[in-house]
Amino acid sequence: MARTGLLVVLEGGEGVGKTTQWTRLTHALEATGQEVVALREPGGTGPGDAIRALLLDSEEALRPATEALLFAASRAELVERAIRPALGRGVLVLLDRYLLSTYVYQGMARGLEASGLRAINQFATGGLVPDCTLLLQLPVQEALHRMQERGAPDRLEREGLAFHERVTRGFDVAAGAEWQQAHPECGAILAVSALGSASDVSARCLAVLADRWPERFTPPVGQTP
Amino acid sequence: MARTGLLVVLEGGEGVGKTTQWTRLTHALEATGQEVVALREPGGTGPGDAIRALLLDSEEALRPATEALLFAASRAELVERAIRPALGRGVLVLLDRYLLSTYVYQGMARGLEASGLRAINQFATGGLVPDCTLLLQLPVQEALHRMQERGAPDRLEREGLAFHERVTRGFDVAAGAEWQQAHPECGAILAVSALGSASDVSARCLAVLADRWPERFTPPVGQTP
Repeated sequence: MARTGLLVVLEGGEGVGKTTQWTRLTHALEATGQEVVALREPGGTGPGDAIRALLLDSEEALRPATEALLFAASRAELVERAIRPALGRGVLVLLDRYLLSTYVYQGMARGLEASGLRAINQFATGGLVPDCTLLLQLPVQEALHRMQERGAPDRLEREGLAFHERVTRGFDVAAGAEWQQAHPECGAILAVSALGSASDVSARCLAVLADRWPERFTPPVGQTP
Repeated sequence: MARTGLLVVLEGGEGVGKTTQWTRLTHALEATGQEVVALREPGGTGPGDAIRALLLDSEEALRPATEALLFAASRAELVERAIRPALGRGVLVLLDRYLLSTYVYQGMARGLEASGLRAINQFATGGLVPDCTLLLQLPVQEALHRMQERGAPDRLEREGLAFHERVTRGFDVAAGAEWQQAHPECGAILAVSALGSASDVSARCLAVLADRWPERFTPPVGQTP
């Protein structure tokens, strides 16, 4: 049976366990027998990795507009070079961050207007909308606690508590129906609690996907060997 | 007398002697006693120089949209960090390339639509329009001849003849009244012949500026020591 490609995005603030879940979900989905292309932003291509280094490792303070344009540049390369070809082959793409991060970090947390962010990202993505976004949610104090436990912070993680609170609040706003209606370019955003063990969180994510696409994420009857 | 800042842009295809004129004009204008801030794109700031390296030295082929976004990112940093502060102090900014290069290289030569380029650059510049653009013009064969004489080509210069012909034609189109009316964000574009010696070309550029702003570029009567 020919399958259509599916673009699933993982989102959330620092410390919610997003990258851990990205790795776990990749393995869990591959175990169901389907091909998974796991990509992350910024990066995932040669030029994108150079942009990632500039964004995350730079000691210089970047202006918010510069930051937004660099994320968009990395995104343009990733969409054209990796995501669209994979979707064209009908496979599942699991993407660590996408457009929603831009609205939350550069928009709601750093104060850039949504209209400008929409314009540069329409240019960057050619209008590629995710099939769904799994938004991992955690109280900001718990997220900070997890960040402190895991070692050296990068440039974004070194931001202060007020910044992380704006990010957490931004993601909460985006999970609401009103925000989603005003931002159809982000697709459906499905909130998932990131409390508990990594294994608990993975099970929740898989349940959300299976609920939405049962034919894809539930093994067909009689397929057991 | 308080002077207003002035943003003068130098434009033209590879091999027209743009960077040579940028240096010569900086010295000539400083010799008239005014402060000149000479900047170039891409680059001119810490993050901008890193972006410049990615754009000009990369061995990887960048997608046109990625290229346009990286130029816009470098531009955003330069406008906010260097150009606006200098204009605020009332000094002359002499800029090697700006928005017009984007329309010609990424638009007319690489095929991206002008509307998207306008949107990302409105975001990057906040609508900063040059006071004038000096467009150096040279037949494409003469420009290629000069490029071959000066040694190692960078990524853009390694493009083929057809690309350089599209660029030359694009700049010619932009010099016309119709194009300028449709692109007010580029300001006035004044064509200057780049034929002849570097000193001839500098004299033509200075004459154009003196004609437009006589109070600024002609020494006041009685100021000779």
